[in-house]
Amino acid sequence: MPDSLPTTRDLRAADAPAGRPFATVLLVRKLTPKTASNGNPFLSAEFGDRAGTISSTVFNDHPVFEALRAAGEGAVVRVEGKTDAYQGRVGIKLSRVSVLAEADLADPAVVANLVELPPEDPALLWKDFQDFAEGIGHPELRATVRLVLEEIGEVFRTAPAATFMHHAYRHGLLEHTVHMARAAKVLLPLYPEADPDLAMAGILLHDTGKTIEYEGTLVAKRGRRGILQGHVVLGYQLVRKAALKARLDPERTERLEHIILSHQGQLEWGAAAMAATPEAVLVSMIDNLDAKMGMVQRALRNAPAGEEFSEKLLGLDAPLLLTPVQPRLPGI
Amino acid sequence: MPDSLPTTRDLRAADAPAGRPFATVLLVRKLTPKTASNGNPFLSAEFGDRAGTISSTVFNDHPVFEALRAAGEGAVVRVEGKTDAYQGRVGIKLSRVSVLAEADLADPAVVANLVELPPEDPALLWKDFQDFAEGIGHPELRATVRLVLEEIGEVFRTAPAATFMHHAYRHGLLEHTVHMARAAKVLLPLYPEADPDLAMAGILLHDTGKTIEYEGTLVAKRGRRGILQGHVVLGYQLVRKAALKARLDPERTERLEHIILSHQGQLEWGAAAMAATPEAVLVSMIDNLDAKMGMVQRALRNAPAGEEFSEKLLGLDAPLLLTPVQPRLPGI
Amino acid sequence: MPDSLPTTRDLRAADAPAGRPFATVLLVRKLTPKTASNGNPFLSAEFGDRAGTISSTVFNDHPVFEALRAAGEGAVVRVEGKTDAYQGRVGIKLSRVSVLAEADLADPAVVANLVELPPEDPALLWKDFQDFAEGIGHPELRATVRLVLEEIGEVFRTAPAATFMHHAYRHGLLEHTVHMARAAKVLLPLYPEADPDLAMAGILLHDTGKTIEYEGTLVAKRGRRGILQGHVVLGYQLVRKAALKARLDPERTERLEHIILSHQGQLEWGAAAMAATPEAVLVSMIDNLDAKMGMVQRALRNAPAGEEFSEKLLGLDAPLLLTPVQPRLPGI
Amino acid sequence: MPDSLPTTRDLRAADAPAGRPFATVLLVRKLTPKTASNGNPFLSAEFGDRAGTISSTVFNDHPVFEALRAAGEGAVVRVEGKTDAYQGRVGIKLSRVSVLAEADLADPAVVANLVELPPEDPALLWKDFQDFAEGIGHPELRATVRLVLEEIGEVFRTAPAATFMHHAYRHGLLEHTVHMARAAKVLLPLYPEADPDLAMAGILLHDTGKTIEYEGTLVAKRGRRGILQGHVVLGYQLVRKAALKARLDPERTERLEHIILSHQGQLEWGAAAMAATPEAVLVSMIDNLDAKMGMVQRALRNAPAGEEFSEKLLGLDAPLLLTPVQPRLPGI
Amino acid sequence: MPDSLPTTRDLRAADAPAGRPFATVLLVRKLTPKTASNGNPFLSAEFGDRAGTISSTVFNDHPVFEALRAAGEGAVVRVEGKTDAYQGRVGIKLSRVSVLAEADLADPAVVANLVELPPEDPALLWKDFQDFAEGIGHPELRATVRLVLEEIGEVFRTAPAATFMHHAYRHGLLEHTVHMARAAKVLLPLYPEADPDLAMAGILLHDTGKTIEYEGTLVAKRGRRGILQGHVVLGYQLVRKAALKARLDPERTERLEHIILSHQGQLEWGAAAMAATPEAVLVSMIDNLDAKMGMVQRALRNAPAGEEFSEKLLGLDAPLLLTPVQPRLPGI
Amino acid sequence: MPDSLPTTRDLRAADAPAGRPFATVLLVRKLTPKTASNGNPFLSAEFGDRAGTISSTVFNDHPVFEALRAAGEGAVVRVEGKTDAYQGRVGIKLSRVSVLAEADLADPAVVANLVELPPEDPALLWKDFQDFAEGIGHPELRATVRLVLEEIGEVFRTAPAATFMHHAYRHGLLEHTVHMARAAKVLLPLYPEADPDLAMAGILLHDTGKTIEYEGTLVAKRGRRGILQGHVVLGYQLVRKAALKARLDPERTERLEHIILSHQGQLEWGAAAMAATPEAVLVSMIDNLDAKMGMVQRALRNAPAGEEFSEKLLGLDAPLLLTPVQPRLPGI
Repeated sequence: MPDSLPTTRDLRAADAPAGRPFATVLLVRKLTPKTASNGNPFLSAEFGDRAGTISSTVFNDHPVFEALRAAGEGAVVRVEGKTDAYQGRVGIKLSRVSVLAEADLADPAVVANLVELPPEDPALLWKDFQDFAEGIGHPELRATVRLVLEEIGEVFRTAPAATFMHHAYRHGLLEHTVHMARAAKVLLPLYPEADPDLAMAGILLHDTGKTIEYEGTLVAKRGRRGILQGHVVLGYQLVRKAALKARLDPERTERLEHIILSHQGQLEWGAAAMAATPEAVLVSMIDNLDAKMGMVQRALRNAPAGEEFSEKLLGLDAPLLLTPVQPRLPGI
Repeated sequence: MPDSLPTTRDLRAADAPAGRPFATVLLVRKLTPKTASNGNPFLSAEFGDRAGTISSTVFNDHPVFEALRAAGEGAVVRVEGKTDAYQGRVGIKLSRVSVLAEADLADPAVVANLVELPPEDPALLWKDFQDFAEGIGHPELRATVRLVLEEIGEVFRTAPAATFMHHAYRHGLLEHTVHMARAAKVLLPLYPEADPDLAMAGILLHDTGKTIEYEGTLVAKRGRRGILQGHVVLGYQLVRKAALKARLDPERTERLEHIILSHQGQLEWGAAAMAATPEAVLVSMIDNLDAKMGMVQRALRNAPAGEEFSEKLLGLDAPLLLTPVQPRLPGI
Repeated sequence: MPDSLPTTRDLRAADAPAGRPFATVLLVRKLTPKTASNGNPFLSAEFGDRAGTISSTVFNDHPVFEALRAAGEGAVVRVEGKTDAYQGRVGIKLSRVSVLAEADLADPAVVANLVELPPEDPALLWKDFQDFAEGIGHPELRATVRLVLEEIGEVFRTAPAATFMHHAYRHGLLEHTVHMARAAKVLLPLYPEADPDLAMAGILLHDTGKTIEYEGTLVAKRGRRGILQGHVVLGYQLVRKAALKARLDPERTERLEHIILSHQGQLEWGAAAMAATPEAVLVSMIDNLDAKMGMVQRALRNAPAGEEFSEKLLGLDAPLLLTPVQPRLPGI
Repeated sequence: MPDSLPTTRDLRAADAPAGRPFATVLLVRKLTPKTASNGNPFLSAEFGDRAGTISSTVFNDHPVFEALRAAGEGAVVRVEGKTDAYQGRVGIKLSRVSVLAEADLADPAVVANLVELPPEDPALLWKDFQDFAEGIGHPELRATVRLVLEEIGEVFRTAPAATFMHHAYRHGLLEHTVHMARAAKVLLPLYPEADPDLAMAGILLHDTGKTIEYEGTLVAKRGRRGILQGHVVLGYQLVRKAALKARLDPERTERLEHIILSHQGQLEWGAAAMAATPEAVLVSMIDNLDAKMGMVQRALRNAPAGEEFSEKLLGLDAPLLLTPVQPRLPGI
Repeated sequence: MPDSLPTTRDLRAADAPAGRPFATVLLVRKLTPKTASNGNPFLSAEFGDRAGTISSTVFNDHPVFEALRAAGEGAVVRVEGKTDAYQGRVGIKLSRVSVLAEADLADPAVVANLVELPPEDPALLWKDFQDFAEGIGHPELRATVRLVLEEIGEVFRTAPAATFMHHAYRHGLLEHTVHMARAAKVLLPLYPEADPDLAMAGILLHDTGKTIEYEGTLVAKRGRRGILQGHVVLGYQLVRKAALKARLDPERTERLEHIILSHQGQLEWGAAAMAATPEAVLVSMIDNLDAKMGMVQRALRNAPAGEEFSEKLLGLDAPLLLTPVQPRLPGI
Repeated sequence: MPDSLPTTRDLRAADAPAGRPFATVLLVRKLTPKTASNGNPFLSAEFGDRAGTISSTVFNDHPVFEALRAAGEGAVVRVEGKTDAYQGRVGIKLSRVSVLAEADLADPAVVANLVELPPEDPALLWKDFQDFAEGIGHPELRATVRLVLEEIGEVFRTAPAATFMHHAYRHGLLEHTVHMARAAKVLLPLYPEADPDLAMAGILLHDTGKTIEYEGTLVAKRGRRGILQGHVVLGYQLVRKAALKARLDPERTERLEHIILSHQGQLEWGAAAMAATPEAVLVSMIDNLDAKMGMVQRALRNAPAGEEFSEKLLGLDAPLLLTPVQPRLPGI
């Protein structure tokens, strides 16, 4: 797929003539079934990519109507059509729509235009994750981590870490987890009060409930189980089941569960218990530290050229200074 | 056991001579092992009943030392000894200590002096509870309630509902649960949006985690599992296991679990999820209503004669007017 | 008036030709007097119904200018004209405007298109309200309720209960009050600490100040007295005057006033005092319970077909699960 | 009455012999009826003055029992007796108790030892208050102020302005009100948006509800009407009645009532409405300013010799620097 | 420059024909460099005045491209061109752009159309400011004030006092400071605990850090030093340097610095310390009072004709009643 | 000095006879000048060590009166005397008092009984601190750190890090700073967005203002400058001066100052600015992490033998589980 696929920005460009034919790949952001005044059903569709969004109206007597309805919100579709202008806004008139399979999304070239990706190769992040898991010395703890990952499967590698706060993009959960594990690796020798195997297992598993909480890996959205239980309880349940199966001793099981239940740090942020073991305190603090630094990293990555400060970052309650420190000038 | 057993107030009475022999039944509130300056260990003990507390120091060469240490905090003990005055405070010197069995505590005459009890007979409350459970029409839901109760056993009948806020006394959990069930029984026909069987099962089970969270039925105190998991997650786990065993369908299991997870009403009050089903909203509101009315009932029950207002009640953020409404005077 | 009156959605329909003549009934949502660059005054008007809004510009030399200005915001008007398109937005050009009288609004068929209505027939709700009032045993309390209702008159039957939170629609105040009275009727025997006549009178009168606080029954808006005094003080004043006239004894007057002053539950939610009598605590809790369940009922009523969850509800801080519990499948 | 009346500090002095006879004037701070173990009633009494408190136990067969019970909490009593030591604490044994009349309390020499007084002569403060009232130009507003003062009478001159925050002492309400009026007098020309007569009347009346809210002028305590209604609503009611009687026009009545209802500044501090007129905003800000400066003045007045900082002041959330600015040294 | 320069409202007027030539003076509110789909750079510009905003697109091959880019955001420009309609929105096509110098902005006739101005003549406010500075009796304090003003120079006379809350317009900082000084002048005799010279110097300097915090006098925006240090620390630093230079004694330096550090009143509002001297408490309270009254004054000034209430004012959390008190009608 | 110096616990021991002579070393916790009823001044003194406190009254005609007054609060004194019992409490009667010099306190054996000490040798912590300072690559940054340390001198090595929250003991500031530097050392490679030299310098200097904020190294207490300026501004000022002297370039100076100003994390916790550079975000998060882990370490160190949980820790809002994880039992 060539780089030159037009983006929504290209389609909406101020100097673009209406009626121009195009073919590209877009994300289905929103699909709203409506009824026209003559009683005919139609779909009001919003497509998007990293550059923005563009709308289309598809009547039920049009060939793409069924294809689009079947694709559903969150699908990635190959679309063909013409640009269109109605009531002063540029939209698109579709002639063909076909859905891309999840397998096609493994190709970064396909999704890079559509959604944000972490700067590190997800395959290498996944390799690191596995190394951290294998590095856990305690056999039953190690087995517990493996069993949870088997249970949730592939989705852990692609899920975002949040709907909008930090690491809120495809593979963000894997990236955040590995970053935390790297921090824990170097901090644990400094805080020997925390059992290193428990702390590492806790970090690797702390957010696994999010693979159930969020539906979709491109457009993160809380699903039914996310709303009714929340990722803390969902993760706790995953860990509990795996620990039982791995025959982890009751004390470690309880302490590991406690890490999951308390990692959000404050009850009002969703913790089910306040951290009350050395491991749990350490994990919740590393989580907070990497979440904040993740916001910093993302703001720097997305910094518009020439801007001195980012917009105010929600999680920092401040804009971020985007310019790097000047190298030392010897003569000053 | 005669009514005339002396209370701690009697023992500390302003006009009581020191050195008076006595025999009574008291609660062991606090036991602190200390070491005298000569290196000998001793126990600093605080005994209590509804009238207050009184202290005693027991050295390790005294016959009651072992009996007291074995009894432990929270035990109910039959004590004999003499009143004592040391450094201006009245205390007791013990000559005999023996522990009462939990079975002895079933006799209200024994515990009525020691701790607060609900005004309704616990046996009748328990009968009502069982009737509400039997009244659940859906067989697997009914079985789920039964299985949780079998799992936690006797302790549900005696546990307090809180450490200090509402229904914070022996049998308080049973009383609060039955009061909520009564309210639900009459409110459910008015709010048909809430499934009555789910709502009733949710009420009967919502606080069962407290039987694990609190240790002791006379002196409520959060134990290890209470601190590390909290009663919301403990109750959720009890319900989950029972529902599985009762072969409750997945949707009802999820909705029942959601009632448990959300009944605290607000994340900062300990809810793991915000109520998002009609049943869960109704149960959390009935919980709140009965908790507040329970504080009102307790304040009225314990009202000092002649006082117009209670002390400021923590949960109401106000003192309570204690005087009943005057009957209508026809001539006014 | 036929069902087929076009709605604003029909007028704005994507496939509707401009310049189409129409006649319908709409609500005047906003009227802003402006001045054109040639110095001529004109009105920028926004009309609305349940389906949305549509705009019109009326110059002062047009015959409908005066009629519209006289109608004012919040009026219901019969309008005739043609659809119009200006700068890419569909609007309307008016040829006739006439105001409907409040009496015409009693016909549900007229207002049902314009604004949300409660599902129960307002006439039956009003009948229930009167029955609850007549059921108050204490003669002077009963007379107090009657006198307040006489004082505020018809408007109580049509006022909304809020500007946007719960029961925020025509007749919503009546509906919320009757729902609370039904709940109180069944709860009062369970909480005999609360005087039933006082509690019922308190419920029937608690929000009567809103009939003064809000101006308009179709578009709820806080008026001058609402802003300067608030419905709590306005209701307190209504009750005080009526109680004096009904020769209610001073103690009941004080306790009834206290219910009005404290029913909002928290100072920051507008309570002038914290509830400090059994009746006041019970009324404020029933108010809260029915407000929350009213949000649940409204969300279920307005659920878009096929949606699993509602939008996040402001008062619940959660989306609501919209699907009913599946009936039990015997074979599971 | 000589200066040499012993204070509670003198009675409790470390080097004072027990059994010393004394006669002095004290405040009855607390009276708790109790029952001895022999069934006889007795009173546990706490007496106080500015220097501290001292306790006494009076049995019902003692001649002063009835006199003390009749005096009640908050009374000022002339007492005679002997110092006493019981269980290591110094107390008093009473032989005579007689109550001082409210008239006797007008003599500052009597109350100066008992409670804190404002530094300005209350008679002069009262004179100033009357001058401010007479200075109101609008006749009906002036009459309204006069009528409220007639209604509440003498108590306005002696009431404290708070139970513990600012101006929390005898005559504190008068002092705070006059200080605010002085500030308003000089600020009103700078803020001509606020109607000066309304603002001044609002200031003079804003806290008059406290004369009903608090019981006692020496030991401020919220009474029944204070708890059930609060000083804001009580003051609003006083003003409403007086304005009606003075035939104040409806607009000024509404604006004056609004000043009373909103002067607390924030709903959570007890305001029934947020300030929404220029006068109301100005009055609430002057109230806040003088309350804070009143805390400063009191802390400076009560500064222990040689201390650089006061204790942390509750209303400032900081300790206060107590040392005055050094005069300029010309040579520096 | 004639009054008749067209405003953005005139340019966007509903009845204005497209393609109309015009010449006027506007503010450059936002300049966003973009790239067209053909690869050519262009500027998306938003111009504004008090009446609103209007947009323009300028391609890089157009003569005004460079002039506009050089002008930058916040510049005031004389523009010529024609109105334009694109996709249903009115915009402008520019033919000439030239920047006005800061000196030209001294003429109120030029900026009055562009931005809000205080009602008092800035020259007279500046005169008053200098008089207050000269009125400080203590020579070194007076010199400190003078030195800070010399340091920050002209910008103090034109800076706004805030980005959006109170006095958020050109000259607003000078106006707010002088209004506070006037209030302090009359209040200081009433609160002799506060050293008048320190308090006055503190008021004159309290917000001088804002001259560094905000960039631009027409479009206030926090700049780099404002974000990284905040006006409190920036002002503290200005004062510290000036006091050192003026040889102010250490105690007054410390107390003056403390006024600057604490004037925001609460830590969460940006205070670096809580006010702990009489002067600091007084200054922070006068700051709060004048900020609130400044919002009142501005809302009254900008009141739309015929409106009874303003929109809800952010700082008051209420709408403001806009109608003045009716003069007394003698016959009522 | 022998281990066998009696502690306050020994002096107050339940079985200790009064009048026993003793000699020991104690801390003067509180000295209150009072006046006896005969007009004679006396000192009420409270002495303390890690085991508790004990009181003494010293009259002005006693030889130790002057020595004690001169010593002042916070001094360490060698005392001789006898135990004493007065009003049921054990105290001491002093015969000799002499002050220990600060130099004597360098001997851990002297202070170990009096106050808590960090578990690591302060000399080694100091060595580490210097190594971290020397490890800063940028010469002017390194010089800035050195200059601040020269300015504040010895006190940095002994100051506590807080009055009661975390590392609140002698040498606690040094310990907390070195622990943070160790964490930064290993985390910086993981977060290359943060300039390592700036971050390290920021950590070494972030709390240096506390050496001025707190008076005393044994009894931490906020002094005059601490109250009037706060450690954030005091540290900022120290850094600013040193950076100027070290000729640090303006950008690094600004970024280093920003780390100091923002490290408290939230405005309400005392930050003067919100962290807005990568270094500042990282430093504030490491500060928070080590503060929490410091509370964990201290609670474990001070764990009473046999206790499963600590008291609720203020900074964690939870009790801490004190038992270590059990080693793996191979046979399970």
